[in-house]
Parts: sequence; structure tokens; C-alpha cells
Amino acid sequence: MSTSGRELCLLHLGIGQVGRALVQQLLARRQELQADYGLKIRYLGLATSRGALLEPSGFSAEELQQTLALAATKRSLSELGSGDFVASIPEAIAIAGGWQLPGAVLIDTTASDELAPELAQALGRGFDVVLSNKKPLAGTLAEYQALQDACRQSGTRLRYEATVGAGLPVIHTLETLIQTGDELLEIQGSLSGTLGFICTSLEDGLPFSQALERARRLGYCEPDPRQDLEGLDVARKMLILARRWGLPWEPEALQLESMISNELSQEPTVAAFLARLPQLDEEYRQRAEGARASGQVWRYIATVSPEGGSVRLAAVERESSFGQLRGTDSLVQFKTARYRESPLIIRGAGAGPEVTAAGVFGDLLALAGVL
Amino acid sequence: MSTSGRELCLLHLGIGQVGRALVQQLLARRQELQADYGLKIRYLGLATSRGALLEPSGFSAEELQQTLALAATKRSLSELGSGDFVASIPEAIAIAGGWQLPGAVLIDTTASDELAPELAQALGRGFDVVLSNKKPLAGTLAEYQALQDACRQSGTRLRYEATVGAGLPVIHTLETLIQTGDELLEIQGSLSGTLGFICTSLEDGLPFSQALERARRLGYCEPDPRQDLEGLDVARKMLILARRWGLPWEPEALQLESMISNELSQEPTVAAFLARLPQLDEEYRQRAEGARASGQVWRYIATVSPEGGSVRLAAVERESSFGQLRGTDSLVQFKTARYRESPLIIRGAGAGPEVTAAGVFGDLLALAGVL
Repeated sequence: MSTSGRELCLLHLGIGQVGRALVQQLLARRQELQADYGLKIRYLGLATSRGALLEPSGFSAEELQQTLALAATKRSLSELGSGDFVASIPEAIAIAGGWQLPGAVLIDTTASDELAPELAQALGRGFDVVLSNKKPLAGTLAEYQALQDACRQSGTRLRYEATVGAGLPVIHTLETLIQTGDELLEIQGSLSGTLGFICTSLEDGLPFSQALERARRLGYCEPDPRQDLEGLDVARKMLILARRWGLPWEPEALQLESMISNELSQEPTVAAFLARLPQLDEEYRQRAEGARASGQVWRYIATVSPEGGSVRLAAVERESSFGQLRGTDSLVQFKTARYRESPLIIRGAGAGPEVTAAGVFGDLLALAGVL
Repeated sequence: MSTSGRELCLLHLGIGQVGRALVQQLLARRQELQADYGLKIRYLGLATSRGALLEPSGFSAEELQQTLALAATKRSLSELGSGDFVASIPEAIAIAGGWQLPGAVLIDTTASDELAPELAQALGRGFDVVLSNKKPLAGTLAEYQALQDACRQSGTRLRYEATVGAGLPVIHTLETLIQTGDELLEIQGSLSGTLGFICTSLEDGLPFSQALERARRLGYCEPDPRQDLEGLDVARKMLILARRWGLPWEPEALQLESMISNELSQEPTVAAFLARLPQLDEEYRQRAEGARASGQVWRYIATVSPEGGSVRLAAVERESSFGQLRGTDSLVQFKTARYRESPLIIRGAGAGPEVTAAGVFGDLLALAGVL
């Protein structure tokens, strides 16, 4: 069971903020991991949606930095002198899979909803897979099961700590509870930094439209903030937890309550949507006030149990773990047979490139036996 | 990196409450782990301080249950018909080590402060070691380093999730932060269910002596409650975190503030100590009231950073994560470069046989590559 002499051979899809942070973290730890654990990190390839650069002997730190710099300018990786350029990701997987390297890992730090077939292909070709991309695990149940089947048939492994709560040990904790035979009763989470921030702002008396405006200014929102307000990202995270629990749910199984009306969701532009947003201020002011009067606050809470799942605004006691949550922090709470009286709670910054990349890095180290 | 065909070959020291809970958890999951991961669990031996029963082909579930039943009556394991009885633990380690089994793991769920040499011996003979026993990691620095050296020289591994916060993922989180290159700034913890309960009771207006009486009645205390009140158990946990951080501390490096005076600590009997306890009620009443007046509460808090470590009663804001802690829950908070604004917090039941055994079980599964 020794880890000495291990190698991680990485084919990495997605060189956005998370992908770049991951490369930097890996480079910063590369020498120490080799010295302390004999663990080598060989970077076989880096890919964007427009193609991959491959190098079987592994890129140097300098070549990786050049690739990141080029990708940041949105130019094609084909312009770089190092490595072989391959125009498509399936082709890159086929080529790198053909090298039959032990310790081969495919990393997906994209936000693409089209990569599930490629990930299944990679698992079938002997790659372990590590994701921060939620979409391949939160699509149809058939897609999800195809990934599990590919793992089982090939003896490869799929890890995804960073998909829920970024670097917080949410998946690790769920996995440990299940594998040590605890009985899960309920999982609840506040899993959107954006919506957490808005809920806290409403509690502090800010009008809804101004709370959103502040969240946008601080960089907490998607370019179209409706993507946050509709709750879909939270629903994806909860679906991932539910499926790992063993609940065979299609995405529709989760009751999803948007923070805005259908009408506002359908405004043709972000500007038109924002212009109409103050319409909601009075409603949210009343809600906040009503809750305050009874010692409660509103939180956007996702709940999963065998009885069902929901993602919605809920009034909770101010003194509860969710009521005490502030700002953009994420919180996940596991009620189990062993943690029935006192649920197991994990809380902290649950979004951002650095902590998300750290979640991916931790998975890589677990695959290598270092964690 | 596949886990198929793995085996865990266990030599288990300590058949108290935690040890028994662990055997039951392992038995309950044995078949599923084999079916899902090809992981076999072979129980080579069970030991108390008075000797071990060994069986190289592994004990059956029935034999394990018989051994537990016998150990619960405090009778010698030599009375059992199954396995070979060996009178000392070093001898048991020597014999089982001689079998040269891959996947050999020594488990220490005792509370003994004398086993550090045996654990080093086991690591040297090819056993990985998993502990819930804090004492081998919280003795002299030389003892601690001898264990680390034995790991390095033999390529074996030492895991100890259950030593801090029982089944809560405290060590996993610390390890992940370190291995992914985060910069630790400060670790704080409320790590005694007993002292947490007493602090909450003081906050609720109960006199100190009655708070302790209630904690005793609920079974939260050691037979001699001064062992809790003096804070030594909390200090051991913090020393384990500090050493993993890389701080080369002797136990004396931690400033330790007892909740009772030296004079009371030195009473010859528990009864004499308890009789004098109401002496402290007025002091603690004033403390609680003084804190309340400024929106604060008292918590027994351990702090570690490169500047030093302390374990002491501290007044904290009622709104802080520690101020919001209630009852016997444990809480650990990591401030790091990545979690500077919002510390990473883990909270929940941090003591008890079931959750402690689960911490050990999780470590075993990590060694086998299942977690």
C-alpha cells in the first residue's frame, strides 16, 4: 500500500479560472510531493473547447505557464510551439488513452454540459476522472449511470469533491458516512454564495434589487444573474448528493423554487430584467419583516431525503445553523443515525477559483494515495 | 490504482466501547465491501492489555462476537477455544508481522499511554497503523517523531482521524489543506463535549457545581471528572493538530488553563473534590454574568498558531461560531490563506463510541483505497 514511485499523468480539460488556479497549485507543490511521497506529476495535456496540446513526456513548468498565458487571451493552443495540437477532445482522449500510462487522470474543470460522453469514454480507456464541472453528474439519470457503469467495467474511479461546496469536504464526508455504514436521514445545504449573500442582505434591510446589485458589483453573480436566482446551480449540487446517496432521481425529481417569477426569467435581456427587478422589492421586504417578527430569517435551502428533494426559500429560526449563516458562506448539514441529535455540519467559503481548484487537487492526491 | 482484490488484515488492540463498536461496524459492512470493491476484511487478532488471540486465516463473525462477549466480562481471552493465545502485545505484533501479509493494519482503540513503542515496532514490521488512542501521538516529541520515522523508513502509514473530533473529518481537512498547498494561519477548536456542555449550562444560568453534576449524570464525564476539567484531553487533541501542522512542540508548549484550582485538583478523592466544588459557583456565576452583559459567552477554546498554543476559558462573542455552539458538540475552525475571510468550520458530535469507531473505520477504508 505504499505510495512511493507513483505518478499522476494528467490530461486537463478547461483552462478557465479554476483550471488556471489548479495548474498553479500543482506547480507550487510539485517538488515537495516528489520529495515527500515520490509522487511525480506529469502533465500530458491541456485542452480548451477548441482543442488540446499533448505531450507524452509531460510539459515543463515553463511550457504550462506559456499555455495558460495563451489560453487567457482566448487564442488557439495551436499557436504554441510545444506539444502536439489535436483539434478535438475525443481525439485527445483517444490518443492519450493509447499511451496506456498508469496513473492517467482526466480532469474536467470546464463548465460544459456536453462532456458526459467524453468522460465515459475516458473512464473506459483507463483514465480515472476528477471533476469540478457539475453538469456531467447532474444531467439525465442515464448519463449519470453510464459514468458509474464505465467505472465499474474498467475498474477506474470518478471523484468530484469540488462539485459541491468547492474545497469543503462535503463529498468526502458523505462518502465516509455511507462507506462506514451510517444511515443517512437527511441532507440540507445552503449552497449558493450569491443567494446566501442576498438572503443576508435582505435580513439586514436592503431592498431585493439593491441586494442583487451589490452582489453583482462584488462579482458574486453569473453574467446573467437569473442563472443564480433561478436556483439551477444549487439544484445540480443537491442532485449530485442525492444520487451519491443512492436515490435514482432525474433532475425533475427536485422541487425547484426560483427567487424570481417566470415572467422576469423570460425578459429578453439582462438589462430589461434588471429594470423590472424593483417590482419584487416590496414582496421581499414584507417577507423579511414577517420572518423577523417571529425570530426567523429566510434562507435558500436545499433538502434531500428519500421522501423527496426541494430547493427553495425557507424561513428558518435565526438561532439554527442555517439562520446563523452569513454572507457567501456555504453550509451542508448531514443528519444520520449517528449524527441524529447533533447533525454533522461543514461550513465555509464554498465558491471561488482557489478553493474549487483545491477540491480537484485533493481528489488527485486521494487517487495517488497521498490523502 | 484499482482497489479490486484488496485485503485488510487487522490486528486490533483494545476491546472497550470503541473497539466493540468498530468490530460491529466492520461486520455490518463486510459483505457489501467485498461485493462492491472486492475488499476482504480478515481479522487476524484481537487484543486486550492482558494478551491477544491470533488466527492467521482470520476469525469468523461468530468467533469475533464470542471474543467481544468474553472481553466485555473482563475475562482473559485465553479462555476462548478459537485462535492462539499470546500473552503480550509485542509478541502478538512480532508473530503477526512475521506472516508478512499485504494490507496488514494494526488498530489501537485503547486508552493506553504505553503503546508508542509497540506502534513504532508495528510500523517497522510492515503494519499500517490506525489510532483512536490519542496518547501515542501526544507524548514527548521524540516519541511522536519515532513514529514518523518508522513510517518513512518502512513505507508504512499512520492514520488518526478519530483522535480529534471522533468521526468528524478534522484530520482529513487539515491534511488536505496542507497537501494542496494552502497556508495555515490558525486552528481553533472547542474539543470537549463535557466542557462544552458545562459552558452552555453556565450560560443558561446553572451554577457550576450543578452543571458538572448534570454532565456526570448524563454520562459525559470521566469517572474522575477532574480529568475533563483540567483540560488535558483537549490539550492532547490540539497537540496532535499542531504537530501535523509541522510545529515541533513538546506538550509543555501549550498553555493549559484548568477550569478548577490546583487545590481542588489535589483533593485525595473524587467525593472530597465534589464536596468542595460549590466553592467555585460564585466565581463562575460572576464570569457568566459579566460576559452576558457585553454580549459574550464563555467557551473552553483551544488555539494553535506558529505564535503559540493555548487551551483555556475564553469569552467570545455570542454571535461567533464558537458562541453559537451548544451542548456537547465539537467545533474546529481553520483559518488559512484560502479560508481567510470565511474560516472552514466543522461541527457536530465529536465524542462517543459509534462516531469514534467510524473515524477509525474511515481510516481503514482510506488505506484500502475505498475512500
